This record gives sequence, C-alpha cells and structure tokens, in this order.
Amino acid sequence: MSKMLEETRQQPAALARTLDEGLATLNGLRRQFESDRPRMVVLVARGTSDNAAQFGRYLIEITARIPVSLAAPSIVTLYESRIDLTGVLVVGISQSGESTDTNAVLEDARRRGAATVGITNEPRSRLARVAERVLLARAGREESVAATKTYTCQLMALYLLAFALGGPVSLEVLRQLPDWVERVLELEERIGEIAERYTFMSRAVTVGRGLNYANAQELGLKLMETCYVVAERFSPADLMHGPIALVERSFPVFVFAPPGVTWPSVSGLLSRLEELRAETLVITDEGNPEAACKPARLIQLPIEKSAGNGSAPEPRDLYTAIPYIVPAQLFAAQLAAIKGLNPDRPRALHKVTRTI
Amino acid sequence: MSKMLEETRQQPAALARTLDEGLATLNGLRRQFESDRPRMVVLVARGTSDNAAQFGRYLIEITARIPVSLAAPSIVTLYESRIDLTGVLVVGISQSGESTDTNAVLEDARRRGAATVGITNEPRSRLARVAERVLLARAGREESVAATKTYTCQLMALYLLAFALGGPVSLEVLRQLPDWVERVLELEERIGEIAERYTFMSRAVTVGRGLNYANAQELGLKLMETCYVVAERFSPADLMHGPIALVERSFPVFVFAPPGVTWPSVSGLLSRLEELRAETLVITDEGNPEAACKPARLIQLPIEKSAGNGSAPEPRDLYTAIPYIVPAQLFAAQLAAIKGLNPDRPRALHKVTRTI
Repeated sequence: MSKMLEETRQQPAALARTLDEGLATLNGLRRQFESDRPRMVVLVARGTSDNAAQFGRYLIEITARIPVSLAAPSIVTLYESRIDLTGVLVVGISQSGESTDTNAVLEDARRRGAATVGITNEPRSRLARVAERVLLARAGREESVAATKTYTCQLMALYLLAFALGGPVSLEVLRQLPDWVERVLELEERIGEIAERYTFMSRAVTVGRGLNYANAQELGLKLMETCYVVAERFSPADLMHGPIALVERSFPVFVFAPPGVTWPSVSGLLSRLEELRAETLVITDEGNPEAACKPARLIQLPIEKSAGNGSAPEPRDLYTAIPYIVPAQLFAAQLAAIKGLNPDRPRALHKVTRTI
Repeated sequence: MSKMLEETRQQPAALARTLDEGLATLNGLRRQFESDRPRMVVLVARGTSDNAAQFGRYLIEITARIPVSLAAPSIVTLYESRIDLTGVLVVGISQSGESTDTNAVLEDARRRGAATVGITNEPRSRLARVAERVLLARAGREESVAATKTYTCQLMALYLLAFALGGPVSLEVLRQLPDWVERVLELEERIGEIAERYTFMSRAVTVGRGLNYANAQELGLKLMETCYVVAERFSPADLMHGPIALVERSFPVFVFAPPGVTWPSVSGLLSRLEELRAETLVITDEGNPEAACKPARLIQLPIEKSAGNGSAPEPRDLYTAIPYIVPAQLFAAQLAAIKGLNPDRPRALHKVTRTI
C-alpha cells in the first residue's frame, strides 16, 4: 500500500492532535489580536500549502471579516518591493517549514514590523524560528511526496487562527471533525471501485466554490502530481465564463457540492454539464439531498450535520472543507495505484522545494 | 479572417486611444489618492479581466507598494460577509461592464464607504455608473468572444492607475507601447507557421512569473476557449513544486521569458524542461539574448528596450506585459483557424457572463 493511502487514513488522529495542541496556545493568540487587531492578513505558501492558504482566505474573510491577500512571493524575493505592512498580519504556511521563499517573505515582514504567524508540521524548522508565533500542524511525519494529512491539519490550524482573529468558529464542531473524517474513510473501497473507471483519463476539470474552492485546487494538484492527469481547476463562475468551451461529451469533471450558499451556483453548473453530456463526479453529503437527485456519478459522504451547532447563522458549508477533501485523496491515491504509479515518489519531484 | 485576429491587429490604435483618454482624467485621480492614500487595493474581475487584475496586483505592489488582494466575489455575493473596507480602494474590471458579481462587489463596497474605480470598455455600462471614478479602456467594440484588445487596454488602464497611486510609472514609455505592439504584429506569419506544428495538441502547460504571470494565465485561457486545449497555468515556482510530474517527453510547455529579475528562475525551469525533453516554446525579446541560447523553439520579439527610460532603478520587465501577450494572441487565433475552429464563437459560450 502507498504511504499516501496510509497517511490519508491517519487523518482522524492527526486532526485531533492538531486541535489539542492548538487549543493550548489559542488564548495567547486571541488576546494579542484583541488588543492589536490586524487591518489585513497576508497568507504566504506554495503548492498544497498554498491551497490551504486559499481556504484560509475564504475562512478569515467570511468569519473574521478581515480582508485577506494571498502573497505573490516574487514581489519580495525578486522585485524587492517594500510593500507597506503597517497593521498587517503575515501568515506563512509550509509543511516542512523550509520553503525558501515563504520564509523569505516572513523574515522580511517581521523585520519591517508586521505581526507574523507560522503554520508548519515541523517545530524545529526555519519557519518556526522566523515567525513570532507558531501554530503547529501535528500531522506526524509525512513520507509521501503527495501531501494529505498535512493539508487537513493546516486547515484545522486555520480554523484556530480564524477563531483567534475573533471569527465565530465553533470549537465544539472542530472537535467533531476527526469523527466525520473517520466516517468518510469508510468509503475507501467504494471510491476505489469508482476510480477504476478513470484509468485512462488524461485530462480533467475540477470545480469548487467558496470554502470548497481550495479543495478543487487540491484535488487538481493531486491528480497532476500522482496520476499525471492535466487537471484544470475552476470555480463554477470562472468555468462558465470561458473554459466551459473545452468540455466535450464524456469530458471528466469533478465537482464539490456541499449544502449551503454555493449550492445554487454549483447546481446550475451541474445542469449545464448534463446538457453537454460531460462525465461528472459529484462529491456531496447527506445534508444536501438535492445533489443526489442530479443525474451524475456520486460520492455521498455519510455526514449529515455539516452545518455547525446552530447557535449562529453561520454558512452551512463552514465545516465541510476537511471531510470533503478526504474522498478526493482516496480517489487520487487509488487511481495512481490502478495506473501502476507510485504516488509517494512522483517522477521529477522532491519533498522540499527551494525556489530560485 | 476571424474577428479575433482582426481585433488583435487593432491593438496599437486601441492602446493609443486608451492612453490619451486616460491622461485626460489622470490628474484628478492622482490628487484624490495623494490626499487620501488607500491602505489596500482590492481588484474584482472575472475571466480575461481577472487575468488583467492579476497583472494589476503585481504592478501596484511593485510600483505603488500598496498591498493588493484579488477579490473572491462569492464572499460578498453568496456569504454576504461585511469585510472591513476602511481605507480600501476597490477596483472593478470588466470589458462589458455588465458582469453581475463584479458589479455587486463594487456596489457593496461603495455603499459601505470604500473608494471605487471601474475599468471598462463601455462608458454607459452599469460598472461605469456604479463606480465613483472610471478609467475607460478605449478598445472599440470587441466582437470576438475571445478577448484580445480589451485585455491589453485594461493593462494600459492599470498602468495609469498605478501612476495615479504614486507608482514610478513612466508615461513616456507608455507612449511607446503602441509602437512596440505594432512591431510585434509583424511576426504574425512566422507565428502562424509555428502554430501549424501544434495542430493536434490536446494538453499544455503555460508558465510566466511576476509581471508576466498574468500573461501565462491569459495564454492558457485563450488556448482553452479558442482551441479546446486543456492548458494548466503556473509560475515556474509552482510548476516545479509538484505539477512538473506531468511533463513527459514532448509535452508542450509555453514560457514567457522577459529579461530582468524573473529570468534566473525562468532559466532554471528551461534547463529542467530540457532534461525532461519537453517541447518548449519560449516568448522573449531582443533585450534578453540569453534566452535565445536555450535549446528551445523561440518567438523573439523585435523590441530591445523593454527596460524603460533608465531614470529609475525600475524592474527591466516593467513594460513587457502588453507586447508579450500579442504573440500569444496571434498563436491562439491562428491555431484555432488551423484546427478549423471559430475563435469568435467558442462552443457553449456567451460574451457577458451573469454569475448566479
């Protein structure tokens, strides 16, 4: 069995550890941000961590209502622009904590007086030393080059960061997430059967919106890295705005379809894909029965209450990002195995990227 | 001949008109921002305009040194989050000025006291009415669904915006851009010959960094919309960080390679692509002779002085974005024709997208 599949299965324990560890340091962080609220958050990352950052962007803007920017590292590392960082919180995200340009942006920001936080799996990494405060993803050592558990643990850390920034994030629901993931993992065999059908896929499109946009990015990245499928990644709006032209009959499209405010837009796209006779695979859960009525292949997650604790009028998809990526990880790991590829060692790749 | 090719050729005149029009309103805008400097700029757009926004992001952070965020419209339109917009300048970019969610974000921002600017081709559009101030892209009517001249005119408007925000942008160099584009257009026949080779391409990767990252996005979008090629778009750093795994022998890769600070990183990627025996096409200019030494297919633009006027230590690629996209437009328009496709009316597409 691949390390990737093994590590995918380790996620319930990894998430529980990350949450416990985070709760211990959370109050300090929250107090700091209460007395000195950032006017803007900048997230810096590469690869899978950049997909986590993409999620963090939606999460923080939706819950804490602070504007967020995803950094373009070259603006600091190559163009050497001294952007005005007054009142800005800069957050670096890196599994290894050794991503050279993420660290360069953090160092520059800290030197110039910005508040800094590092989210990493490695407490002794350079990122952990460079950042003023650290939120640890307690995923345990990740041996597969294709990241799985570090991604979901980074998402967990971002929920804690949003909470610390004053966002109405329910710690009680976060505590349920490892159990939800446990239940999703039971779909492994069924997803392996579905993956069989995609053995000769060479091109695909992945789609997600809002809090699941990052998951569409991450599924696409996994398909590229581990299965060598060219996977274009879109929001339904961006796909409809142009690239829909390339979706011909039987073209494979993967769609994240949680309940909540993004559903009408995703539902509209599904109808369009049906007209085009695309080959659509929908990832949804039991809380969105309408998705099950669409004439598409379905992965329905056995979780009903993705909607939080009901105490606040929070978006119904607020806690879907972690359970929803798990079937995608299971799919990619098993499809790689079916194709005779090793997802732990994709050709031409190393675990830590040092950017020139 | 396709409208797309015709409109690609109209760019020198369209750019000159956009510059002249912009200069007339520029001082008012500059005075406003001098007395009330934005602490942050948010750019809102979809499709090709979103690629222009991506360019604006680099341009404003590099020249005006104000942090920029590319808006995720759903945060306003679906999640209805009231992000703190104190001191924020929100800029909407839309060819038609009728993009529903771009306008919704602008309206929300203006109602809540943010400064707003609209960049559009249509002076009587909703965007032009909603935004407090307007910078007109004077491209003239664009009939092809695949945008060309409106993209470069949006880039021109963004140079003017960066200037108004206090960025060291040389109006003198901007005045030379129509002439540079004129010279690039002379490559049309040569690029048509190159395109021939790509008749059966179904997958590709496009790469650009920094101020040419947006061009990689835009070339990829053009290949998807007009030639139905699944084109993944990356910075060299992001490509090396994972998706490089899908580049096998003869895999087509398109690389923007201007002179300046991004060159070492792009050069490193070109060496890696050579090792992998990818089929690489490099877009560069006479000011970067090193690129011509690489063993890859080459489009060398007949412009030497992409480096501005020499009075400030500005990045050497500061004015490359407009001339560099032109060969990509010529390539996509001619490849579509070679494949017997109509780039003016891609299947399944309309000119104005109304997002649910």
